Amino acid sequence: MRIFRALNLTLNMRKLFSILFISFGGMQINCAQQDSIMFDRIYHESFYNGQAYDNLRYLTKEIGHRIAGSKKADQAVVWSKGLMEGLGLDKVYLQNVEVPYWDRGPKEKAHIVETGEPLNVLALGGSVATPINGLEAEVIEIELLSDLRKYGEQVRGKIVFINKPWDESMVETGVAYGLNAGQRSRGPGEAAKLGAVAFLFRSLSSSAIDDYPHTGGTRYIDGVDRIPAIAISAVSANRLSERLKENPKAKVYLEQHAAWKDNVPTHNVIGEWIGSEFPEKIITIGGHIDSWDVGEGAHDNGTGTMGTLDALRTLKALGYKPRHTIRLVFYMNEENGVHGSMAYGRYAKDKNEQLIAGIESDAGGFAPRGFDIKASASQVEWMQKHWKPLFEQKFWVSRFLSGSPGVDSGVWGEHFPNTTMFNFRPDPHRYFDLHHTDKDVFEAVDRRELQSGVAAIASLLYLVDQQIDELHKK
Amino acid sequence: MRIFRALNLTLNMRKLFSILFISFGGMQINCAQQDSIMFDRIYHESFYNGQAYDNLRYLTKEIGHRIAGSKKADQAVVWSKGLMEGLGLDKVYLQNVEVPYWDRGPKEKAHIVETGEPLNVLALGGSVATPINGLEAEVIEIELLSDLRKYGEQVRGKIVFINKPWDESMVETGVAYGLNAGQRSRGPGEAAKLGAVAFLFRSLSSSAIDDYPHTGGTRYIDGVDRIPAIAISAVSANRLSERLKENPKAKVYLEQHAAWKDNVPTHNVIGEWIGSEFPEKIITIGGHIDSWDVGEGAHDNGTGTMGTLDALRTLKALGYKPRHTIRLVFYMNEENGVHGSMAYGRYAKDKNEQLIAGIESDAGGFAPRGFDIKASASQVEWMQKHWKPLFEQKFWVSRFLSGSPGVDSGVWGEHFPNTTMFNFRPDPHRYFDLHHTDKDVFEAVDRRELQSGVAAIASLLYLVDQQIDELHKK
Repeated sequence: MRIFRALNLTLNMRKLFSILFISFGGMQINCAQQDSIMFDRIYHESFYNGQAYDNLRYLTKEIGHRIAGSKKADQAVVWSKGLMEGLGLDKVYLQNVEVPYWDRGPKEKAHIVETGEPLNVLALGGSVATPINGLEAEVIEIELLSDLRKYGEQVRGKIVFINKPWDESMVETGVAYGLNAGQRSRGPGEAAKLGAVAFLFRSLSSSAIDDYPHTGGTRYIDGVDRIPAIAISAVSANRLSERLKENPKAKVYLEQHAAWKDNVPTHNVIGEWIGSEFPEKIITIGGHIDSWDVGEGAHDNGTGTMGTLDALRTLKALGYKPRHTIRLVFYMNEENGVHGSMAYGRYAKDKNEQLIAGIESDAGGFAPRGFDIKASASQVEWMQKHWKPLFEQKFWVSRFLSGSPGVDSGVWGEHFPNTTMFNFRPDPHRYFDLHHTDKDVFEAVDRRELQSGVAAIASLLYLVDQQIDELHKK
Repeated sequence: MRIFRALNLTLNMRKLFSILFISFGGMQINCAQQDSIMFDRIYHESFYNGQAYDNLRYLTKEIGHRIAGSKKADQAVVWSKGLMEGLGLDKVYLQNVEVPYWDRGPKEKAHIVETGEPLNVLALGGSVATPINGLEAEVIEIELLSDLRKYGEQVRGKIVFINKPWDESMVETGVAYGLNAGQRSRGPGEAAKLGAVAFLFRSLSSSAIDDYPHTGGTRYIDGVDRIPAIAISAVSANRLSERLKENPKAKVYLEQHAAWKDNVPTHNVIGEWIGSEFPEKIITIGGHIDSWDVGEGAHDNGTGTMGTLDALRTLKALGYKPRHTIRLVFYMNEENGVHGSMAYGRYAKDKNEQLIAGIESDAGGFAPRGFDIKASASQVEWMQKHWKPLFEQKFWVSRFLSGSPGVDSGVWGEHFPNTTMFNFRPDPHRYFDLHHTDKDVFEAVDRRELQSGVAAIASLLYLVDQQIDELHKK
């Protein structure tokens, strides 16, 4: 009795445990029942003893944001290698990756010249600096890059300001993000081709009343001038747009000091739990350990790394022995170059490894909803029939739909087109409120939601390990 | 172009609108397509023009918490009647309800006598007061009420302290709540029967590190002494339990001044939107307008009232004409007596009304997950087949399972056993962190999550209105 109370087991749990122990003793129970019992144990372990939340606190509060190439990123590498070693995995190592290093420098400044009204801005990742004393220019406001052509020579010497609102009608905020993100990437190059002196971009935020600028990657066109590329908060974008209606000649002052530094040698962090039956067949699971250089990289992607690590810890704590090798990978540099996942794919390809499945977590740590799956239609259908019922009613995880793998899995997956891929999907409503901003901090993560996600991922990992051979026959 | 930009319509939305206008022009499209187009319009309207969030701000910040019988509750009645009138419904009226009125009085006090350590407590709803200068007594700590028998005469003169931890392993936190809530109701009576002088109850909180006491209803046994019944925060409960292990004779001081006042005449608030085809057949939708007398009653149940009202507003804004009568009901006194829903059921029964369906929202305003449904198994299956696909992939609403109606619907439903009932289910992870506490405030509600729920409810309401006759044939 005492031990059960110490474990905080309810009567029902105790019954289940008894059944489990009996089954170990030789009695037969069917597979779905076994899986269901395993799920109960996983959820119990994750909610009661989960460490994702406490590890996340360390990563966000003690280390903080960690752009690839920075000292903080290396600190995260060393610390998370220690975490993996603490799990007692069979092999923990660093994989060399060379990354570009972009340094934001001192805080950006921006205001409307005529009114002095401040604008909340944040340089886009990879942007070059303004002149050291800033720049001042008139503004051309457009919604779509394609509108720029109409302005022709008028663009020369101006700031191009893309002010396309977020499509708020979409529950699937990732799609809304995708609708506008292309202009963030292509904008600086297209604007520079026409002689613009800077590129100002309405932040990709799901809230129209958001006063935080959201950074994110952008790029230039070889052979075309590189101009400063800067994100502006939705509220500041609205303010600027109003002023431009009143005075189309209004000027904006921009000052920022970002710079590319020398490439930096750094690492992916890898831990392996060797399979007992098929050690050569590898299930890759993980997410990126780097973040943007704002906030604390909590939902993006502290929850993904600390969550997948805790999924392994959960199975280990339950005495689980994997059939296949489970390889935990913390990729470096997802945010601005994906050099970590490129390196991972290249090494695996060179060694002719058998990467049979990939699981990625890089969409935040909100309440778990399910997985986007890259597999054949008949395989997805089989998982909907056999796996989804284990999750749906009791654990509120019900999304098992065909979809894209995460960014890192997608990149290394180019070498492994037949790998079955799972992209963990937490609730999407709030993610793009804080994505790539100073708001993405530890306090924005809820422990129950995070540990519920850990349990969902651990449960999926268990099913993949147990049943992937069966799945691959479908 | 300008009007479309003003409406923030994307290209895809514009296409859908074109299809819709064409269909009005006489072209045929199938029913599922029509429903899907309607859903898009509903979600667009709710996210862009939704007023639930702003109304909730008024209810929580300008009115605040509103226990039945209080002036605040009446203020909420008058104000929300005005809101319904503003919608242009066909008929808005108040329904008389007499409610008991319980007044908490000045803030409770509690501490451990020997150490002086404070304990965070909150009287349970309906509790009688301690003596005016408080009481001081030794404590009997138990986990289950049934353990109390063992103590027999030792209970006399003591404080009975139920310290049963929350089952954290459950994603469905409502079930975890239910596991412990019975002891909250029965505890004071059972303890008093054995001569206890007070009842101290570990708060029903999903977090073991929660330092907020959670109030809630309790009751006494006729003919047995009424003793003070008080909730204690999880953290304070842990602290007290530790001290009792060190010193089983440790005493606790409790002081609170709650009192029952005279019954108060108050109201349900009702608005009717008369059906064009079947005005006599009524779909009841709503939630309770009262709250506990702590926090701001934001998730419980500001979101449910402001959300269902905004669901009607959404359909109205789209020019929708209901086939059946849609009756919006804000019930009074769900929290401590359910006199509002009892009255609603009684009036409807007396008038022999046809209440064909009920939709209730009283589980918070987190991201919408689906509906628990009281209907036959074949009807639920039919809805899973025909309705769920409209919600699932695009809008992330996928839970259509047999289940209980909400508390208010359940109460009036006793007179209407054949009514099809829908209980709106938002994400359950965080609800019981703030349920019945000072944490249940406006700031704990996210606009996107709330308006996404409004859209889900409006979409369901539309389907019920359009297809309930078909459903009832299954």
